[in-house]
Amino acid sequence: MSSFPESVEICEVGPRDGLQNEDPIAVEQRVQLIDALSATGLRQIEAVSFVSPTAIPPMAGAEEVMARITRVPGVTYRALVPNERGAERAIAAAADELEVVVSASETHNRRNVRRSVDESIDGAKVLAGMAHDAGLPVDGIVSTAFGCPYEGDVEVAAVAAVAARLLEGGADSVSFGDTTGMATPRRVDALLDELDRIGVPSACVGLHFHNTRGTGLANVLMGLTRGVRRFDASIGGLGGCPYAPGATGNVVTEDLVHMLEDMEIATGIDLDALIECAHLAQHLVGRDLPGQVMRSGPRTRRGEAT
Amino acid sequence: MSSFPESVEICEVGPRDGLQNEDPIAVEQRVQLIDALSATGLRQIEAVSFVSPTAIPPMAGAEEVMARITRVPGVTYRALVPNERGAERAIAAAADELEVVVSASETHNRRNVRRSVDESIDGAKVLAGMAHDAGLPVDGIVSTAFGCPYEGDVEVAAVAAVAARLLEGGADSVSFGDTTGMATPRRVDALLDELDRIGVPSACVGLHFHNTRGTGLANVLMGLTRGVRRFDASIGGLGGCPYAPGATGNVVTEDLVHMLEDMEIATGIDLDALIECAHLAQHLVGRDLPGQVMRSGPRTRRGEAT
Repeated sequence: MSSFPESVEICEVGPRDGLQNEDPIAVEQRVQLIDALSATGLRQIEAVSFVSPTAIPPMAGAEEVMARITRVPGVTYRALVPNERGAERAIAAAADELEVVVSASETHNRRNVRRSVDESIDGAKVLAGMAHDAGLPVDGIVSTAFGCPYEGDVEVAAVAAVAARLLEGGADSVSFGDTTGMATPRRVDALLDELDRIGVPSACVGLHFHNTRGTGLANVLMGLTRGVRRFDASIGGLGGCPYAPGATGNVVTEDLVHMLEDMEIATGIDLDALIECAHLAQHLVGRDLPGQVMRSGPRTRRGEAT
Repeated sequence: MSSFPESVEICEVGPRDGLQNEDPIAVEQRVQLIDALSATGLRQIEAVSFVSPTAIPPMAGAEEVMARITRVPGVTYRALVPNERGAERAIAAAADELEVVVSASETHNRRNVRRSVDESIDGAKVLAGMAHDAGLPVDGIVSTAFGCPYEGDVEVAAVAAVAARLLEGGADSVSFGDTTGMATPRRVDALLDELDRIGVPSACVGLHFHNTRGTGLANVLMGLTRGVRRFDASIGGLGGCPYAPGATGNVVTEDLVHMLEDMEIATGIDLDALIECAHLAQHLVGRDLPGQVMRSGPRTRRGEAT
């Protein structure tokens, strides 16, 4: 019999990573979605990104979103911040935790933020200092951690080194982003080996997979068997993938919770309420989302016996 | 570092399990699909079912399909047989291997074939005798092995007992069917524990998952870590699920091969040729299939760096 953790933490990224890759919806609708999610038992919600609204229109109005949501005690509302201006805005808007992103791939980092990886790591240190001064924790996200759409494979040593430098620079935890869905269980296994080797404890590791090539939940399973207990997912599978039109984006929150709960791994989340949120998300973006349990129903659903 | 087998065997079930759950297509198109599949390196193809064409119209003309395909040396063309008449037809049509099915759930078995599980096991013994007399191997398929849409959970002891009785009755191997997509990794793990306990060797075990609730490849991963080396999958994800309109059916062959090959687990299959088959399958059934790698391309696909 294999061994699994008794419980895991799910971070819902639909309102940020998901909606960022959809056509913009109104602030009011984003607030509605976040409030519905915070009522399911989810304790971590990536709510907004304090980026330039010109650069990323779906994330415009982050202050307004943060001001209008109904804060649920015990729920951490996270905000992605790309720079000092973003960090100032996030702190002023009373985000509970900040997220800083550095790509493990030089080409991807330069293309995204026009800086070298070194420059972004230096920038992340400054942002971590600002967060700590405000009493907030910081998650350092290493993107393209399982491959880069420009460079191809990224060495695990390079990925782990970026994570180690973010932790040294003040990040309280690190997450590894499978930005374009290139992870397979072997690559998850290999990265966790390297993190073990350099002494990054699995307790501060989060995994963020995209299901672009169908391996999302298999990658989560590999993480689970290796002791990881924090996973990102997106309600209904909100968010496409800019490099693969028609392909799905993040791991689907309700599909993940459905699998975990049947594995007797507690998430603290009400699956039925989560499925309602997935239908709401689908309604708000006006297109069919890739979530499967929202269509098939949970495995406990019964057919009619004759 | 986790350990995985060096190679696995994939049985392509699209032409039977897949097409059986689609609107009927012409014999000529079924032959075209099977011939395209046999050119990819696949060595096991479930080609037809010798059922009553009135009961299951998409499987009509099984003799004609078997007569018109171009047999590739080394490829095993399998045929599902529900009864003695079916076995006679399959043997006359020169199928290479016969499949017999018994449900682990009494309700599901009675509803499907109007017989008790005991009666179906007795029938399977007769079919195995007929196959062996003709020099052919028999795979015993235990359906609803991870749950029944009518009865709910099915005890692993009951599932394993059906498998053991099929093996005692002459089956050369056994496969476990996740008929309506109710498997999760924990249930795979628990069934394999029980098979170990009663002495069914993993070498004669095959796993057949449906991705109805997104867990297909995670279930395969669990099987791999437990030593299973034979998995069914359907090209493009052909085949819906009668209990979940809009939900996907079998594990997608090209998505499975894509994951396995990146994990350095050899399948002997040409992924590019397989993706072409998935596009062909989509064209033949005239609807979008759920396969993801056929849309996103393999992980080795590169974007344009600026």
